[in-house]
Amino acid sequence: MRKDYMYTVGPTPVPPEVNLAQAKTMMHHRSKEFSDMLERVAGDLRYVFQTESDVLLLTSSGTGGMEAAVVNFFSRGEKVAVFSGGKFGERFVEICNVYGLDTKDLSHPWGTKADPAVLEKLISEGEEIKGVFLTLSETSTGVVNDVEKFGKILKGTDTLLIVDAISGLGALEFRMDEWGVDVAVSGSQKALMMPPGLAFVAVGKKAWERREKATLPCYYFDLETARKALVEGKAKTPYTPAVSLVIALERALAMIREEGLENILEHHRLMAEATRAAVEALGLDFFAGDTKGANVTTSVLSPKGIDSNDIVRLMRDEHGIFIAGGQSKMKGKIFRLGHVGY
Amino acid sequence: MRKDYMYTVGPTPVPPEVNLAQAKTMMHHRSKEFSDMLERVAGDLRYVFQTESDVLLLTSSGTGGMEAAVVNFFSRGEKVAVFSGGKFGERFVEICNVYGLDTKDLSHPWGTKADPAVLEKLISEGEEIKGVFLTLSETSTGVVNDVEKFGKILKGTDTLLIVDAISGLGALEFRMDEWGVDVAVSGSQKALMMPPGLAFVAVGKKAWERREKATLPCYYFDLETARKALVEGKAKTPYTPAVSLVIALERALAMIREEGLENILEHHRLMAEATRAAVEALGLDFFAGDTKGANVTTSVLSPKGIDSNDIVRLMRDEHGIFIAGGQSKMKGKIFRLGHVGY
Repeated sequence: MRKDYMYTVGPTPVPPEVNLAQAKTMMHHRSKEFSDMLERVAGDLRYVFQTESDVLLLTSSGTGGMEAAVVNFFSRGEKVAVFSGGKFGERFVEICNVYGLDTKDLSHPWGTKADPAVLEKLISEGEEIKGVFLTLSETSTGVVNDVEKFGKILKGTDTLLIVDAISGLGALEFRMDEWGVDVAVSGSQKALMMPPGLAFVAVGKKAWERREKATLPCYYFDLETARKALVEGKAKTPYTPAVSLVIALERALAMIREEGLENILEHHRLMAEATRAAVEALGLDFFAGDTKGANVTTSVLSPKGIDSNDIVRLMRDEHGIFIAGGQSKMKGKIFRLGHVGY
Repeated sequence: MRKDYMYTVGPTPVPPEVNLAQAKTMMHHRSKEFSDMLERVAGDLRYVFQTESDVLLLTSSGTGGMEAAVVNFFSRGEKVAVFSGGKFGERFVEICNVYGLDTKDLSHPWGTKADPAVLEKLISEGEEIKGVFLTLSETSTGVVNDVEKFGKILKGTDTLLIVDAISGLGALEFRMDEWGVDVAVSGSQKALMMPPGLAFVAVGKKAWERREKATLPCYYFDLETARKALVEGKAKTPYTPAVSLVIALERALAMIREEGLENILEHHRLMAEATRAAVEALGLDFFAGDTKGANVTTSVLSPKGIDSNDIVRLMRDEHGIFIAGGQSKMKGKIFRLGHVGY
């Protein structure tokens, strides 16, 4: 008899009651019962994002939400800047390039934080940057960026601040409205303790105003269509959503509300600090230069001469513990211990 | 104690074992266990689509699959023709327009079939049509189109035949390879007896060749990325898929294999014929002009002076039977009885 433990950074463990909620008898997505549920879910998502703005639900993985955050707010050839310090920052660069934006790739080395001074300089030079893309928690490195500082720099400017909060939301402090974040993206399978399959995009007032002028093509990820369905319509989603996942999400969000966001963040902090203490006690080195507040995932350098994939395999095969190796250029060099979720 | 019956055209009833499969403990999407599962699913999907080609799995609703069928195979300004005879045909027109294709909207009245002679004329006139979009079963009207005939006309031409088989696949005969369909789209929540949240796009050789020259922008719905992950990679999907839905899908497809596609189609035929006989016996009129083989949904004209939404409400509130009303311009005028799914 072997018990498996999931310490990857998404999917994360799902509470039994959330898991079972998926198995509820299928209901129609145009029923009043389901519409009422979507309204409760929307309210709870506003709580988790700490925003008064609309939070739209998409049936897709987080990457779909990232694409929505690009295609809704810009026009071909417009200049944007991406602070990319890992695989997921790079993804924003890729998406912006695919859609023909004039993309300034402000990449900083993997394992380091995005530097607000770089943004300050860029803004002071008067370049017309239409949007700045930032990752709250870069899952591939464990680094957590100081979103609040970036928000302060962009306050009062015409530049949108777009944040990938996929692995960070619900694990780290994130105050969308207070920090001046215009668009925030998250996914179901991280700290929200859900199976994957849903993405969330929160859109603030400044971003909605920009939406009106944006001309990049989009259909399935058109957030104005989603907003209309949620706010004005009785339908709540423009296309058939993943009904069973929404039913489970309602349950997961109710648990989060009940526990309280503050307590959940504190729990993540405790888990991460305990892990960091253990890593240090073992004499191992962190990959991320600054681990303070990096409470989503702890990246550890593999000891010299040891392929980190061997550690991942050993942990899985011998101990039933699922951790993650490195991605892209960090393959074989680091292993990652996740702290998010149930 | 009230028992509800779902006779809508998607979501459709889900077998208890498929429902429960969703509640299996979460597994990581990069594990061998999950990759093996995706491979079995891909094989079973080829069986359902009756194709030797790649069938790609997307985490999205069917509309996302429709968008994928547009953005992967064309370039801005190219001419395409859409046979649109209902809400879902119109959706293809909308998507093609959003992406700047030169879209010939060959709409035919709701309730009628797409006419192969129109395509024959178009092709004989020598217009360079890069793609033809057709709906197998138009859910909003109940009409089933003769895909095979359209395939014959386009055989040997350079024109792609793209079919929305969302509500039809698994309920109606559909032979992708034999009929010369180049791209076929379907969704999980119809005859495949699954909750919504997954879309499938089958892509044939001619379409893959076209893919290389196509320049419309896409990222999340990039099928070449999906193909590489499925066929060449160990990862199987480029982004985190809806793991619990895939687990359930494996179960649903196994049930379909076990029952046999032929038997399932025959069952749908029987249910639809019984419904049509009952509608006739009640002295009611069909909305679709030709109901032969229209085994997905039966559209019935509301008797004079009665709003069809009142019938839908009565069925639901008094009898616990969920049927669908009319969509868009047919609102209040028809009600629809679904035959698909478990």
